[in-house]
Amino acid sequence: MIRSSSYAGVMESLMNSAEEQQPSSPLANSWSKPQESSKNQMPKCIGGFVLVHAGAGYHSESKAKEYKHVCKRACQRAVDRLKAGALAVEAVAAALVELEDSPFTNAGMGSNLNLSGEIECDASIMDGKSLHYGAVGAISGIKNPVLVANRLLSEAQKGKLSAGRIPPCFLVGRGAHDWAVSHGISPCPSEKMATKFSLSAYKRNKRKMELAEKMDTGPNQAKKRRQSSENENVSGCLDTVGAIVVDLEGNVAAAVSSGGLAMKHPGRVGQAAHYGCGCWAENAFNMNPYSTAVSTSGSPFLASEDRVLGGVIVLRCCRCAEPPPSPKIQGILVEFLWSHTTESMCVGYMSAQDSKAKTHISRLPPGTVPGQCLAIEGGVCRLMSVAE
Amino acid sequence: MIRSSSYAGVMESLMNSAEEQQPSSPLANSWSKPQESSKNQMPKCIGGFVLVHAGAGYHSESKAKEYKHVCKRACQRAVDRLKAGALAVEAVAAALVELEDSPFTNAGMGSNLNLSGEIECDASIMDGKSLHYGAVGAISGIKNPVLVANRLLSEAQKGKLSAGRIPPCFLVGRGAHDWAVSHGISPCPSEKMATKFSLSAYKRNKRKMELAEKMDTGPNQAKKRRQSSENENVSGCLDTVGAIVVDLEGNVAAAVSSGGLAMKHPGRVGQAAHYGCGCWAENAFNMNPYSTAVSTSGSPFLASEDRVLGGVIVLRCCRCAEPPPSPKIQGILVEFLWSHTTESMCVGYMSAQDSKAKTHISRLPPGTVPGQCLAIEGGVCRLMSVAE
Repeated sequence: MIRSSSYAGVMESLMNSAEEQQPSSPLANSWSKPQESSKNQMPKCIGGFVLVHAGAGYHSESKAKEYKHVCKRACQRAVDRLKAGALAVEAVAAALVELEDSPFTNAGMGSNLNLSGEIECDASIMDGKSLHYGAVGAISGIKNPVLVANRLLSEAQKGKLSAGRIPPCFLVGRGAHDWAVSHGISPCPSEKMATKFSLSAYKRNKRKMELAEKMDTGPNQAKKRRQSSENENVSGCLDTVGAIVVDLEGNVAAAVSSGGLAMKHPGRVGQAAHYGCGCWAENAFNMNPYSTAVSTSGSPFLASEDRVLGGVIVLRCCRCAEPPPSPKIQGILVEFLWSHTTESMCVGYMSAQDSKAKTHISRLPPGTVPGQCLAIEGGVCRLMSVAE
Repeated sequence: MIRSSSYAGVMESLMNSAEEQQPSSPLANSWSKPQESSKNQMPKCIGGFVLVHAGAGYHSESKAKEYKHVCKRACQRAVDRLKAGALAVEAVAAALVELEDSPFTNAGMGSNLNLSGEIECDASIMDGKSLHYGAVGAISGIKNPVLVANRLLSEAQKGKLSAGRIPPCFLVGRGAHDWAVSHGISPCPSEKMATKFSLSAYKRNKRKMELAEKMDTGPNQAKKRRQSSENENVSGCLDTVGAIVVDLEGNVAAAVSSGGLAMKHPGRVGQAAHYGCGCWAENAFNMNPYSTAVSTSGSPFLASEDRVLGGVIVLRCCRCAEPPPSPKIQGILVEFLWSHTTESMCVGYMSAQDSKAKTHISRLPPGTVPGQCLAIEGGVCRLMSVAE
């Protein structure tokens, strides 16, 4: 199912493959199921779909199981919320909490440590219905940064503060922490958020840095810097996490959360907190029949980077063109994909009519080089819900 | 010269007006001058143009003089750097320093105070040649935030840090302050950055907030919030500052600096620090003959805001189409504009061949309502430089 092709053509080709209804493809399952059931019985209000990822980077076979597990749990959490009638933005936040709580991902618990040995996280969330956005950057001592971002979003939706003040949508550092606590979000001691793995990675990276800086003293420093081999470089978990959701009304939402680069300078904010960079969600409107949600992961937006390592999950959906089996039923066609230039990317997806999530470790084709090749996979899912 | 028209058509109409060479328009001056001189003598290397603004908001006649002065000085600073052979990015930073140093603008010295009575600034800068970008958010105790953003940009251009670490391009809060000091930028006590005006505005706003919160207790709080009249709202200086530059090689750069909203929550970061929001600069490349630089000011990007109050300065330039007077001379055509939905906007502009900057307070047409009307003005300037 790996397609290493240009982005432009992929939506088209994914759609075509779905129209052909290949029963052998696991991705066609969620599409074909409601189709069959609708012949026999009137479907209940069963709309909603979620796609999550637990990071674009390198996933060894031994790690794969853990990542698949957390993706499965995150999908289930979102679908549980959707079935309870939650809107897309609530469901996407629920999925993110599960991803952040895993000690294996670089978000929330188990995030990379910065140069000072502290955890500082970035997260953002966007509601495609209102186009509201909430984000935190370089926040410490909060177990679930996405919940602060989500609370910023929901507070902003209430309108202005006293005396006509505009509510914040992006808070950073100490101010973000204090705002969260004053809005009832419990602080979490930093030492509880570090894991055995993140602490040992920090010590290893610290040693590498000290070694590299010893070698760097003297002339041609800049030249030496670039010549340092990959093994001498600091390494960390690249696994920024993200999720995108469409709810049974066709609203979309997107969220992203990241612990940032290992050994980053304190106060560094990455793309996960950047408006228009980490995530985007936009419902269909007058001239545009498609709702779209995107969540990204990977390299910072450095023009000079010779290899761009990253990943993205995307969905777009629209009302089904063909007439529904009953005028009371409306169908939503969801097209979704994941794409990465890293060695691998772990994803999970589930629609509200599925009994459990599908998970998958997507890998670049054998023999290809990360950063020089793009893997794209995806599928199509048809949602049915009773029209109001 | 006020044109209240749609954005799409303005570049076209501005170009046409320049082609007609109206000698009565002050904006045509810098265009017609080199044209005349080139007939008599070979021009020296005199390229370069700067456009600055000292804020989109409301400028009373009494304040107008101060704002025009600071715009003039900022233009002069940039042109001095251009004449000394500096690239666009250095010149744009020099202009911003002058704008930040004015106690009348809401940037650097004299910035709005936040809820805790502290100054926290946002700034960003972009180099159209390298597409590198540097930004700081919610930074305290630094007189010129743009110099930290510029230093982040120039450090990133040196390549990776020891042990292969990616240099930061966006730092916030305490981490940003510490990075600046460790890179030789002097700290400045916060009390030195506040002015008599900003302190008295803080006290006045604090009283308004206390009054508003007293009235807000009880039912229908949210409704009451919105009903509060304009006079009861906190007010501050809206004057985010910005500059855009093209140098004699045709490189462009843009920068923006802001003290943010009055009475904002500590840690709040506004659009001035956001990648792709506060400023943008992009040199011409293969398929695109235009270099473009933009700097914005105004309302945060809240979808729910009923009135969008903001301002923008824009320039684009390209090699002149018609043959130069000598094959050794190359001409650059610079089109520039400023636009605002606020009551007024103070701008200044100057090319390296001008003896002094032109300044102007642009105002909405009489009888129109801020946020519901758009003023656009601009001009065209032709730069000549000796080809290499």
